[in-house]
Amino acid sequence: MADPQEQVPPTEESTGPSKSELKKRAKELEKQKKAAEKAARQEEQAAKQAATEVDFATEFYGALPLHQSQTRPRLPRIQIFSLSTRDGQTVLFRARVQTSRLQGNKMVFLNLRQRGDSVQALVIATPEKISKQMIKWAGSLADESIVLVQGLVKRSPEPIKSATVQDVEVQVAQIHLISGIDGRLPFSLDDASRPDTEEAADDDRQFSRVLLDTRLNNRVVDLRTQTNQAVFKLQSVIGDLFRQHLSSNGFIEIHSPKLQGAATESGASVFKVGYFKGSAFLAQSPQLAKQMAIAADFERVYEIGPVFRAEDSNTHRHLTEFMGLDLEMTIEEHYHEVMELLDGLFLSIFRGLKANYSAEIATVGLQFPADEFKWREGPEGTLKLTFRQAIDMLVEDGVPREDLDDINTENEKRLGRLVKAKYDTDYFIIDKFPIELRPFYTMPDAEDPTVSNSYDFFMRGEEILSGAQRIHDPNVLAEKMRGKGVDPDSMKGYLDAFRMGCAPHGGGGIGLERVLMLFLKLNNIRRASMFPRDPKRLEP
Amino acid sequence: MADPQEQVPPTEESTGPSKSELKKRAKELEKQKKAAEKAARQEEQAAKQAATEVDFATEFYGALPLHQSQTRPRLPRIQIFSLSTRDGQTVLFRARVQTSRLQGNKMVFLNLRQRGDSVQALVIATPEKISKQMIKWAGSLADESIVLVQGLVKRSPEPIKSATVQDVEVQVAQIHLISGIDGRLPFSLDDASRPDTEEAADDDRQFSRVLLDTRLNNRVVDLRTQTNQAVFKLQSVIGDLFRQHLSSNGFIEIHSPKLQGAATESGASVFKVGYFKGSAFLAQSPQLAKQMAIAADFERVYEIGPVFRAEDSNTHRHLTEFMGLDLEMTIEEHYHEVMELLDGLFLSIFRGLKANYSAEIATVGLQFPADEFKWREGPEGTLKLTFRQAIDMLVEDGVPREDLDDINTENEKRLGRLVKAKYDTDYFIIDKFPIELRPFYTMPDAEDPTVSNSYDFFMRGEEILSGAQRIHDPNVLAEKMRGKGVDPDSMKGYLDAFRMGCAPHGGGGIGLERVLMLFLKLNNIRRASMFPRDPKRLEP
Repeated sequence: MADPQEQVPPTEESTGPSKSELKKRAKELEKQKKAAEKAARQEEQAAKQAATEVDFATEFYGALPLHQSQTRPRLPRIQIFSLSTRDGQTVLFRARVQTSRLQGNKMVFLNLRQRGDSVQALVIATPEKISKQMIKWAGSLADESIVLVQGLVKRSPEPIKSATVQDVEVQVAQIHLISGIDGRLPFSLDDASRPDTEEAADDDRQFSRVLLDTRLNNRVVDLRTQTNQAVFKLQSVIGDLFRQHLSSNGFIEIHSPKLQGAATESGASVFKVGYFKGSAFLAQSPQLAKQMAIAADFERVYEIGPVFRAEDSNTHRHLTEFMGLDLEMTIEEHYHEVMELLDGLFLSIFRGLKANYSAEIATVGLQFPADEFKWREGPEGTLKLTFRQAIDMLVEDGVPREDLDDINTENEKRLGRLVKAKYDTDYFIIDKFPIELRPFYTMPDAEDPTVSNSYDFFMRGEEILSGAQRIHDPNVLAEKMRGKGVDPDSMKGYLDAFRMGCAPHGGGGIGLERVLMLFLKLNNIRRASMFPRDPKRLEP
Repeated sequence: MADPQEQVPPTEESTGPSKSELKKRAKELEKQKKAAEKAARQEEQAAKQAATEVDFATEFYGALPLHQSQTRPRLPRIQIFSLSTRDGQTVLFRARVQTSRLQGNKMVFLNLRQRGDSVQALVIATPEKISKQMIKWAGSLADESIVLVQGLVKRSPEPIKSATVQDVEVQVAQIHLISGIDGRLPFSLDDASRPDTEEAADDDRQFSRVLLDTRLNNRVVDLRTQTNQAVFKLQSVIGDLFRQHLSSNGFIEIHSPKLQGAATESGASVFKVGYFKGSAFLAQSPQLAKQMAIAADFERVYEIGPVFRAEDSNTHRHLTEFMGLDLEMTIEEHYHEVMELLDGLFLSIFRGLKANYSAEIATVGLQFPADEFKWREGPEGTLKLTFRQAIDMLVEDGVPREDLDDINTENEKRLGRLVKAKYDTDYFIIDKFPIELRPFYTMPDAEDPTVSNSYDFFMRGEEILSGAQRIHDPNVLAEKMRGKGVDPDSMKGYLDAFRMGCAPHGGGGIGLERVLMLFLKLNNIRRASMFPRDPKRLEP
């Protein structure tokens, strides 16, 4: 559009044109004048409008500079789970944006999250407080951004089903971006949180299903689901319950080296490490070290540490690196002292989980539906079968006895079902394994040399602990080594530990991830490991 | 001597010899007869003696068969430390023979030991109860044998200085061998327990001194000293105090994999592992994993696990494998939130040790004399210096400023002495290290880009913790990597974790063995590790 200032009208003093022409001109000029006046009015109006919308809210939203600990105003920040008790308060908190939804151009619904907790927040256009620009910005926040929010807590007229805090919401006064998203999310948290069931799979026509491998490749995002927040909270709790029980039973914690000069236990399935100009091996278990701690008179020891298995097993229950919960203790009269202590340990873990973490267990159950884990309480106590009794149960159920030299994974699960049906328990012990199924350091039974003083513990039909009385006599031990094809000279340091006197002892090793997987029925051990390692996965 | 039966005297009816000769003969015969009678009497007496001493005590002593859990009589067994309260009771317990000393042929003094506790026991020849054979057997028990003892607790007329239980002793009724010694002890426990001081070294003319290397080669025996029983009890306690403090401050425990797909942090000093058909690397710290746990919204995490360093450092304070006590947490306003939490953590460890384990600390002090570890309590709190202030103290003390781009080990110790003299504390913090001295992931100061938001903690002039605010922005992080010569593509998984949004955070890593060594002043980190690993040691 041409600038009206350039079309200056000629003055009346000019000569030449006729009266009619002049009239015509005058009309035109009048028209031009009106147009110019209109344009000026419009301009003024636009300017006025621009002036009123210069965005009065710039201080109340936007990206913060990189947090380098510039200041420390010491303003209290609250946790989302506490919001129900803060109706009417102005609060300040950091949270993830789970979702951000623009409603018209005057309101934004935010779902804000901290660990497993979430709350609904509203940004509502308000004169002199919340500008349209601010609404637009808040509505465009990427999912999984991290924001700092200041707002007023208000009781909600009806329960907010999309959040864990359902009775209040937050009316946002200020919202700033602490950390944004650089790229595309691999999947949405909503998709990653859908139930892992057959029926849910049928619903996949409308929702994209997130496969385990995709999750593990993007584990940092996957771990943010409420399910995973609960799973790893519970993993931490199991460790605590393990330590509490043992500590109150006179155990101390030890730390044994994972770098070994020789392949431990047996030559197979050990990772080899370059060690300066020579080699070392990664410990397959703390077995030898904890027995040496017994020979060194520590009496009762436990260790929580990584265990390395170089087995090319690509199953739902094998990892190449997992957390071993190991213990070893002296025996006074009978190895059942150890078995009973281990039983008490498991019961204290189960009871502790049920008594204090039922909310987390229920959260996991939403994504991984499972029958509640059952065990026997009361005077009858935990079900204990001998290996022979277990075999008989399987034979009675139709498994050919000749297939049962050992109990394979399939028959283990079958046994679990039989036991559940007959005894109504997901947890039981099998005692007195055939000696040929156990490692060389296992103590034979005093009367029947084909049987050993050893046991396995089971949860939902899968082994979660293996243990035994150990041989504490160096000469018997050397003989058993030779019998299993292990050269005693290759384990001289271990053998020598028993030459300087060693008390009778026994113990066991528990796989932390297995206990977690089976208690929660996660169906794959990778879900019970924060950053799992298997033959095909070393990242992230 | 000839058999008297063959020299049958001739009868009187025989002819030939004179009367005097006969008299002479009769005298001889009489003499022979008396000798024969005496011999017979002696023989009879011996037989009688043998009959009465058929050893009435065989059931009360001797070696037990190999313990294979044959029986379970459920006889209560007691602990030595409880004996003072059991005067007049008959007790049963298993113990090590620390020493066994035969006194004449009628009494044996035994010093019996369980972990850090010991008691004197007496085996006294008693008709029909304790035979001479039993005395002889008990007196010949090898040091470090394990025995099962039944006896009567009796108050001792005077304190028994050679035992920890000084007010009672045990009169042994039965003593059986559970586990003997096969070979020679590498050193006696008494020798291994002598004070580690200059004066003690002068006394070595009369006592053999046990060198550290000999101890470590025979660690199972070395660990049995009261000193080592206390050292590793305290190691276990430090872990407990660490967890308790963090747990009550909202942390959860995580477990991160030690097998890594790529060399972490930097390419140098990493152990390489054969991983099926490829390679893996041992984690130099859980740094990357714990930061990823923060990016995954766990907010506050800790880990206790092995840390591997392939550095060929053969010093008093380096190991190739040690226990890292690591934590990471989100920051709200300022990284000093992390520094202060770590300070509170150390104070709770120091206070917990002093309040509840002074006996163990004193026990260690007998072998490793040390000034009591000091820290500042009260409103002034822990001493915090900036790096610049620390440098100024050293310069003031005569160290040329140009030598102080970094503080080397020698100057660290010097600083420790200066701080101790001026502030009377063995524990302090240095804040705001030059950025060039810290890893690429360290957050620079907001105003001075040559300085970083990082800190070290010191005990007795040695670093025991290093920590900082980390860079949580992926682009800034990539830039800093390039600046330190690290290819961002080589750490893609780590970098990507921050692209999906990450809260500001910081943390630190503590060396468990260093804390233990310096608190107790053990002078060599190998003494604070049960089975230490260094470039030259992979056994036992």
